[in-house]
Amino acid sequence: MTTIYLAGPDVFLPEAVEIGRRKAAICAAHGVSGLYPLDNAVDLSAAGASMTIFKGNQAMMDEACAIIANLTPFRGPSADAGTVYELGYMAGRGKLCLAYSNDPASYRARVARLYDVATAADGRLIDPEGMTVEDFGLSDNLMMIHALDLHGCPLVTPREAPADIWRDLAAFEACVRLAAGRAAAPSS
Amino acid sequence: MTTIYLAGPDVFLPEAVEIGRRKAAICAAHGVSGLYPLDNAVDLSAAGASMTIFKGNQAMMDEACAIIANLTPFRGPSADAGTVYELGYMAGRGKLCLAYSNDPASYRARVARLYDVATAADGRLIDPEGMTVEDFGLSDNLMMIHALDLHGCPLVTPREAPADIWRDLAAFEACVRLAAGRAAAPSS
Repeated sequence: MTTIYLAGPDVFLPEAVEIGRRKAAICAAHGVSGLYPLDNAVDLSAAGASMTIFKGNQAMMDEACAIIANLTPFRGPSADAGTVYELGYMAGRGKLCLAYSNDPASYRARVARLYDVATAADGRLIDPEGMTVEDFGLSDNLMMIHALDLHGCPLVTPREAPADIWRDLAAFEACVRLAAGRAAAPSS
Repeated sequence: MTTIYLAGPDVFLPEAVEIGRRKAAICAAHGVSGLYPLDNAVDLSAAGASMTIFKGNQAMMDEACAIIANLTPFRGPSADAGTVYELGYMAGRGKLCLAYSNDPASYRARVARLYDVATAADGRLIDPEGMTVEDFGLSDNLMMIHALDLHGCPLVTPREAPADIWRDLAAFEACVRLAAGRAAAPSS
Protein backbone atom coordinates (compact mmCIF):
# COMPACT_ATOMS: atom_id res chain seq x y z
CA MET A 1 0.00 0.00 0.00
CA THR A 2 1.17 3.54 -0.78
CA THR A 3 2.38 5.18 2.43
CA ILE A 4 2.25 8.98 2.53
CA TYR A 5 3.94 11.31 5.01
CA LEU A 6 1.48 14.07 5.99
CA ALA A 7 3.50 17.25 6.57
CA GLY A 8 2.19 20.61 7.67
CA PRO A 9 1.79 23.19 10.41
CA ASP A 10 -1.38 21.28 11.32
CA VAL A 11 0.71 19.87 14.19
CA PHE A 12 0.61 23.36 15.75
CA LEU A 13 -3.20 23.52 15.85
CA PRO A 14 -4.99 23.17 19.23
CA GLU A 15 -6.63 20.01 17.88
CA ALA A 16 -3.49 18.70 16.17
CA VAL A 17 -4.20 15.06 16.97
CA GLU A 18 -7.78 15.21 15.70
CA ILE A 19 -6.87 16.80 12.37
CA GLY A 20 -4.22 14.12 11.92
CA ARG A 21 -6.90 11.48 12.42
CA ARG A 22 -9.15 13.21 9.88
CA LYS A 23 -6.30 13.28 7.35
CA ALA A 24 -5.45 9.63 7.95
CA ALA A 25 -9.14 8.71 7.52
CA ILE A 26 -9.28 10.52 4.17
CA CYS A 27 -6.17 8.59 3.08
CA ALA A 28 -7.73 5.28 4.13
CA ALA A 29 -10.91 6.11 2.19
CA HIS A 30 -8.75 6.41 -0.95
CA GLY A 31 -6.84 3.19 -0.30
CA VAL A 32 -3.56 4.75 0.83
CA SER A 33 -1.92 4.98 4.24
CA GLY A 34 -1.21 8.36 5.85
CA LEU A 35 1.59 8.83 8.39
CA TYR A 36 1.03 11.90 10.56
CA PRO A 37 3.88 13.27 12.70
CA LEU A 38 3.41 12.31 16.32
CA ASP A 39 4.73 15.52 17.88
CA ASN A 40 1.97 15.33 20.41
CA ALA A 41 2.91 11.86 21.61
CA VAL A 42 6.24 13.23 22.88
CA ASP A 43 6.64 14.67 26.40
CA LEU A 44 7.56 18.21 25.33
CA SER A 45 9.13 19.02 28.72
CA ALA A 46 11.57 16.07 28.57
CA ALA A 47 15.24 16.74 27.81
CA GLY A 48 15.89 16.14 24.14
CA ALA A 49 12.19 16.32 23.21
CA SER A 50 12.89 18.28 20.03
CA MET A 51 15.48 15.73 18.88
CA THR A 52 13.06 12.90 19.63
CA ILE A 53 10.48 14.63 17.42
CA PHE A 54 13.07 15.16 14.65
CA LYS A 55 14.14 11.51 14.65
CA GLY A 56 10.52 10.34 14.70
CA ASN A 57 9.60 12.56 11.75
CA GLN A 58 12.68 11.54 9.76
CA ALA A 59 11.96 7.84 10.37
CA MET A 60 8.38 8.35 9.16
CA MET A 61 9.64 10.14 6.03
CA ASP A 62 12.11 7.33 5.33
CA GLU A 63 9.26 4.81 5.63
CA ALA A 64 6.90 6.73 3.34
CA CYS A 65 7.01 6.66 -0.45
CA ALA A 66 5.33 10.04 -0.87
CA ILE A 67 4.68 13.32 0.92
CA ILE A 68 1.62 15.58 0.97
CA ALA A 69 2.76 18.93 2.36
CA ASN A 70 0.44 21.65 3.62
CA LEU A 71 2.11 24.77 2.19
CA THR A 72 -0.59 27.21 3.38
CA PRO A 73 1.37 30.34 4.42
CA PHE A 74 2.37 30.30 8.08
CA ARG A 75 3.52 33.36 10.09
CA GLY A 76 4.49 35.29 6.98
CA PRO A 77 4.18 35.14 3.20
CA SER A 78 5.68 31.64 2.83
CA ALA A 79 4.93 28.13 4.01
CA ASP A 80 5.99 26.73 7.40
CA ALA A 81 9.76 26.20 7.46
CA GLY A 82 9.60 22.71 9.00
CA THR A 83 7.17 21.59 6.30
CA VAL A 84 9.35 23.08 3.55
CA TYR A 85 12.41 21.27 4.96
CA GLU A 86 10.45 18.02 4.81
CA LEU A 87 9.36 18.62 1.22
CA GLY A 88 13.00 19.19 0.27
CA TYR A 89 14.11 16.09 2.16
CA MET A 90 11.56 13.90 0.37
CA ALA A 91 12.48 15.39 -3.03
CA GLY A 92 16.12 14.65 -2.23
CA ARG A 93 15.20 11.05 -1.38
CA GLY A 94 13.45 10.69 -4.74
CA LYS A 95 9.99 10.29 -3.22
CA LEU A 96 6.74 11.46 -4.87
CA CYS A 97 6.06 15.07 -3.83
CA LEU A 98 2.58 16.57 -3.54
CA ALA A 99 1.38 19.68 -1.74
CA TYR A 100 -1.51 22.06 -1.33
CA SER A 101 -2.03 25.60 -0.12
CA ASN A 102 -5.37 26.95 1.05
CA ASP A 103 -4.31 30.48 0.05
CA PRO A 104 -4.69 30.90 -3.73
CA ALA A 105 -2.91 34.31 -3.80
CA SER A 106 0.43 34.71 -5.55
CA TYR A 107 3.59 35.15 -3.47
CA ARG A 108 3.93 38.68 -4.81
CA ALA A 109 0.39 39.61 -3.71
CA ARG A 110 0.97 38.08 -0.29
CA VAL A 111 4.22 39.99 0.26
CA ALA A 112 2.44 43.19 -0.83
CA ARG A 113 -0.22 42.57 1.83
CA LEU A 114 2.46 42.48 4.54
CA TYR A 115 5.10 44.94 3.32
CA ASP A 116 5.43 48.07 1.23
CA VAL A 117 6.57 46.78 -2.15
CA ALA A 118 8.18 49.09 -4.70
CA THR A 119 10.03 48.99 -8.02
CA ALA A 120 13.73 49.77 -7.72
CA ALA A 121 15.71 51.89 -10.20
CA ASP A 122 17.14 48.67 -11.68
CA GLY A 123 13.62 47.33 -12.31
CA ARG A 124 13.55 44.80 -9.46
CA LEU A 125 10.39 44.52 -7.34
CA ILE A 126 11.69 45.07 -3.80
CA ASP A 127 10.59 44.99 -0.17
CA PRO A 128 11.49 47.75 2.34
CA GLU A 129 14.92 46.11 2.91
CA GLY A 130 15.69 46.34 -0.81
CA MET A 131 15.46 42.56 -1.22
CA THR A 132 13.95 41.25 -4.47
CA VAL A 133 10.37 39.98 -4.30
CA GLU A 134 9.96 36.91 -6.53
CA ASP A 135 7.42 37.84 -9.19
CA PHE A 136 6.78 34.80 -11.38
CA GLY A 137 3.05 34.50 -10.60
CA LEU A 138 3.82 31.49 -8.40
CA SER A 139 2.22 30.72 -5.03
CA ASP A 140 5.51 30.67 -3.12
CA ASN A 141 9.27 30.46 -3.61
CA LEU A 142 10.06 28.84 -6.95
CA MET A 143 12.14 26.07 -5.41
CA MET A 144 9.13 24.44 -3.75
CA ILE A 145 6.67 25.15 -6.55
CA HIS A 146 8.88 23.68 -9.30
CA ALA A 147 10.01 20.79 -7.09
CA LEU A 148 6.35 19.79 -7.10
CA ASP A 149 6.13 20.21 -10.88
CA LEU A 150 9.18 17.98 -11.46
CA HIS A 151 9.11 15.54 -8.53
CA GLY A 152 5.36 14.97 -8.26
CA CYS A 153 2.26 17.00 -9.09
CA PRO A 154 1.72 20.78 -9.37
CA LEU A 155 0.64 22.57 -6.19
CA VAL A 156 -3.08 22.16 -5.49
CA THR A 157 -4.89 25.38 -4.53
CA PRO A 158 -8.60 26.21 -4.23
CA ARG A 159 -10.14 28.86 -6.50
CA GLU A 160 -10.95 30.89 -3.39
CA ALA A 161 -9.56 30.55 0.11
CA PRO A 162 -11.90 28.43 2.25
CA ALA A 163 -13.51 30.01 5.31
CA ASP A 164 -11.16 28.10 7.62
CA ILE A 165 -7.78 27.78 5.92
CA TRP A 166 -6.38 25.55 8.69
CA ARG A 167 -9.21 23.05 8.85
CA ASP A 168 -10.65 22.80 5.33
CA LEU A 169 -9.32 19.55 3.83
CA ALA A 170 -10.74 19.71 0.26
CA ALA A 171 -7.37 20.58 -1.30
CA PHE A 172 -5.70 17.96 0.89
CA GLU A 173 -8.18 15.35 -0.37
CA ALA A 174 -7.41 16.37 -3.97
CA CYS A 175 -3.74 15.58 -3.24
CA VAL A 176 -4.68 12.21 -1.76
CA ARG A 177 -6.65 11.42 -4.93
CA LEU A 178 -3.63 12.33 -7.07
CA ALA A 179 -1.32 10.16 -4.94
CA ALA A 180 -3.73 7.23 -5.07
CA GLY A 181 -4.01 7.61 -8.84
CA ARG A 182 -0.22 7.57 -9.23
CA ALA A 183 -0.04 4.43 -7.12
CA ALA A 184 -2.66 2.74 -9.28
CA ALA A 185 -1.01 3.74 -12.57
CA PRO A 186 0.78 0.81 -14.30
CA SER A 187 4.00 2.77 -14.84
CA SER A 188 4.61 3.68 -11.19
CA MET B 1 38.17 19.43 -4.07
CA THR B 2 35.18 19.84 -1.76
CA THR B 3 32.40 21.58 -3.67
CA ILE B 4 29.87 23.47 -1.59
CA TYR B 5 26.47 24.80 -2.65
CA LEU B 6 25.99 28.32 -1.23
CA ALA B 7 22.28 28.73 -0.42
CA GLY B 8 20.58 31.80 0.96
CA PRO B 9 18.37 34.81 0.36
CA ASP B 10 21.59 36.60 -0.59
CA VAL B 11 20.37 36.15 -4.18
CA PHE B 12 17.65 38.71 -3.41
CA LEU B 13 20.10 41.45 -2.40
CA PRO B 14 20.67 44.40 -4.77
CA GLU B 15 24.32 43.31 -5.05
CA ALA B 16 23.50 39.60 -5.28
CA VAL B 17 26.27 38.84 -7.77
CA GLU B 18 28.93 40.65 -5.76
CA ILE B 19 28.11 38.88 -2.50
CA GLY B 20 28.25 35.59 -4.34
CA ARG B 21 31.76 36.48 -5.52
CA ARG B 22 32.77 37.38 -1.96
CA LYS B 23 31.46 34.05 -0.68
CA ALA B 24 33.22 32.11 -3.43
CA ALA B 25 36.47 33.97 -2.64
CA ILE B 26 36.20 33.00 1.04
CA CYS B 27 35.69 29.38 -0.01
CA ALA B 28 38.74 29.51 -2.28
CA ALA B 29 40.85 30.97 0.54
CA HIS B 30 40.03 27.87 2.59
CA GLY B 31 40.74 25.43 -0.22
CA VAL B 32 37.15 24.55 -1.10
CA SER B 33 34.97 25.45 -4.07
CA GLY B 34 31.75 27.44 -3.63
CA LEU B 35 28.86 27.17 -6.08
CA TYR B 36 26.59 30.21 -5.91
CA PRO B 37 23.15 30.09 -7.58
CA LEU B 38 23.15 31.99 -10.83
CA ASP B 39 19.66 33.44 -10.62
CA ASN B 40 20.99 36.68 -12.00
CA ALA B 41 22.40 35.08 -15.10
CA VAL B 42 18.86 34.17 -16.20
CA ASP B 43 16.68 36.55 -18.24
CA LEU B 44 13.92 36.97 -15.65
CA SER B 45 11.42 38.17 -18.25
CA ALA B 46 11.80 35.07 -20.44
CA ALA B 47 9.04 32.45 -20.44
CA GLY B 48 9.98 29.65 -18.07
CA ALA B 49 12.63 31.73 -16.28
CA SER B 50 11.65 30.37 -12.87
CA MET B 51 11.93 26.76 -14.08
CA THR B 52 15.32 27.54 -15.62
CA ILE B 53 16.48 28.84 -12.23
CA PHE B 54 15.08 25.78 -10.45
CA LYS B 55 16.85 23.35 -12.78
CA GLY B 56 20.10 25.30 -12.52
CA ASN B 57 19.98 25.30 -8.73
CA GLN B 58 19.12 21.61 -8.56
CA ALA B 59 21.97 20.72 -10.92
CA MET B 60 24.38 22.72 -8.74
CA MET B 61 23.14 20.93 -5.62
CA ASP B 62 23.55 17.55 -7.31
CA GLU B 63 27.11 18.49 -8.21
CA ALA B 64 28.02 19.70 -4.70
CA CYS B 65 28.99 17.44 -1.79
CA ALA B 66 27.94 19.94 0.88
CA ILE B 67 25.66 22.93 1.50
CA ILE B 68 26.19 26.09 3.52
CA ALA B 69 22.75 27.65 4.01
CA ASN B 70 22.13 31.21 5.16
CA LEU B 71 19.23 30.70 7.60
CA THR B 72 19.09 34.34 8.76
CA PRO B 73 15.35 35.04 9.20
CA PHE B 74 13.72 36.39 6.05
CA ARG B 75 10.32 38.16 5.87
CA GLY B 76 9.16 36.64 9.15
CA PRO B 77 10.46 34.65 12.12
CA SER B 78 11.94 31.79 10.02
CA ALA B 79 14.54 31.34 7.32
CA ASP B 80 13.90 31.88 3.60
CA ALA B 81 11.67 29.09 2.27
CA GLY B 82 13.76 28.45 -0.84
CA THR B 83 16.90 28.06 1.27
CA VAL B 84 15.12 25.73 3.68
CA TYR B 85 13.91 23.60 0.76
CA GLU B 86 17.50 23.34 -0.45
CA LEU B 87 18.78 22.34 2.99
CA GLY B 88 16.17 19.58 3.10
CA TYR B 89 17.03 18.46 -0.41
CA MET B 90 20.74 18.19 0.43
CA ALA B 91 19.99 16.31 3.69
CA GLY B 92 17.82 13.93 1.69
CA ARG B 93 20.67 13.37 -0.76
CA GLY B 94 23.00 12.50 2.13
CA LYS B 95 25.21 15.57 1.62
CA LEU B 96 27.07 17.40 4.42
CA CYS B 97 24.78 20.11 5.83
CA LEU B 98 26.04 23.37 7.36
CA ALA B 99 24.25 26.63 8.01
CA TYR B 100 24.48 29.94 9.80
CA SER B 101 22.09 32.62 10.98
CA ASN B 102 23.13 36.18 11.70
CA ASP B 103 20.26 36.53 14.19
CA PRO B 104 21.22 34.86 17.49
CA ALA B 105 17.71 35.17 19.00
CA SER B 106 15.60 32.10 19.72
CA TYR B 107 12.62 31.30 17.51
CA ARG B 108 10.32 31.95 20.46
CA ALA B 109 11.80 35.42 21.04
CA ARG B 110 11.57 36.24 17.36
CA VAL B 111 7.89 35.22 17.12
CA ALA B 112 7.19 37.30 20.25
CA ARG B 113 8.72 40.34 18.52
CA LEU B 114 6.25 39.99 15.63
CA TYR B 115 3.09 38.62 17.28
CA ASP B 116 1.26 38.67 20.60
CA VAL B 117 2.27 35.40 22.20
CA ALA B 118 0.27 33.93 25.10
CA THR B 119 -0.02 30.75 27.14
CA ALA B 120 -3.16 28.76 26.37
CA ALA B 121 -5.31 27.00 29.00
CA ASP B 122 -3.69 23.70 27.96
CA GLY B 123 -0.22 25.11 28.65
CA ARG B 124 0.82 25.61 25.01
CA LEU B 125 2.60 28.81 24.01
CA ILE B 126 0.40 30.17 21.21
CA ASP B 127 0.25 32.92 18.60
CA PRO B 128 -2.90 35.01 17.94
CA GLU B 129 -4.28 32.22 15.68
CA GLY B 130 -3.97 29.71 18.54
CA MET B 131 -1.13 27.88 16.79
CA THR B 132 1.65 26.47 18.98
CA VAL B 133 4.92 28.44 19.07
CA GLU B 134 7.89 26.04 19.21
CA ASP B 135 9.68 26.71 22.49
CA PHE B 136 12.77 24.51 22.64
CA GLY B 137 15.30 27.36 22.87
CA LEU B 138 16.27 26.68 19.24
CA SER B 139 17.00 29.31 16.58
CA ASP B 140 14.30 28.11 14.20
CA ASN B 141 12.01 25.17 13.48
CA LEU B 142 13.47 21.99 14.98
CA MET B 143 13.54 20.16 11.64
CA MET B 144 16.27 22.40 10.23
CA ILE B 145 18.19 22.82 13.47
CA HIS B 146 18.41 19.10 14.21
CA ALA B 147 19.04 18.23 10.57
CA LEU B 148 22.22 20.25 10.97
CA ASP B 149 23.08 18.47 14.22
CA LEU B 150 22.68 15.04 12.62
CA HIS B 151 23.62 15.60 8.97
CA GLY B 152 26.51 18.05 9.43
CA CYS B 153 27.43 20.66 12.03
CA PRO B 154 25.27 22.59 14.51
CA LEU B 155 23.94 25.97 13.32
CA VAL B 156 26.57 28.72 13.52
CA THR B 157 25.33 31.99 15.06
CA PRO B 158 27.22 35.07 16.26
CA ARG B 159 27.03 36.09 19.94
CA GLU B 160 25.40 39.33 18.86
CA ALA B 161 23.76 40.20 15.57
CA PRO B 162 26.24 42.03 13.30
CA ALA B 163 25.44 45.58 12.23
CA ASP B 164 24.54 44.38 8.73
CA ILE B 165 22.90 40.96 8.98
CA TRP B 166 22.76 40.52 5.19
CA ARG B 167 26.37 41.42 4.40
CA ASP B 168 28.44 40.28 7.41
CA LEU B 169 30.14 37.03 6.41
CA ALA B 170 31.95 36.06 9.67
CA ALA B 171 29.46 33.29 10.49
CA PHE B 172 29.55 32.17 6.86
CA GLU B 173 33.35 31.94 7.03
CA ALA B 174 33.08 29.85 10.23
CA CYS B 175 30.93 27.39 8.25
CA VAL B 176 33.48 27.31 5.42
CA ARG B 177 36.20 26.49 7.98
CA LEU B 178 34.08 23.64 9.37
CA ALA B 179 33.45 22.27 5.88
CA ALA B 180 37.12 22.51 4.95
CA GLY B 181 38.04 20.74 8.21
CA ARG B 182 35.62 17.91 7.47
CA ALA B 183 37.09 17.54 4.00
CA ALA B 184 40.61 17.35 5.44
CA ALA B 185 39.69 14.79 8.12
CA PRO B 186 40.99 11.27 7.30
CA SER B 187 37.62 9.60 7.94
CA SER B 188 35.59 11.65 5.45
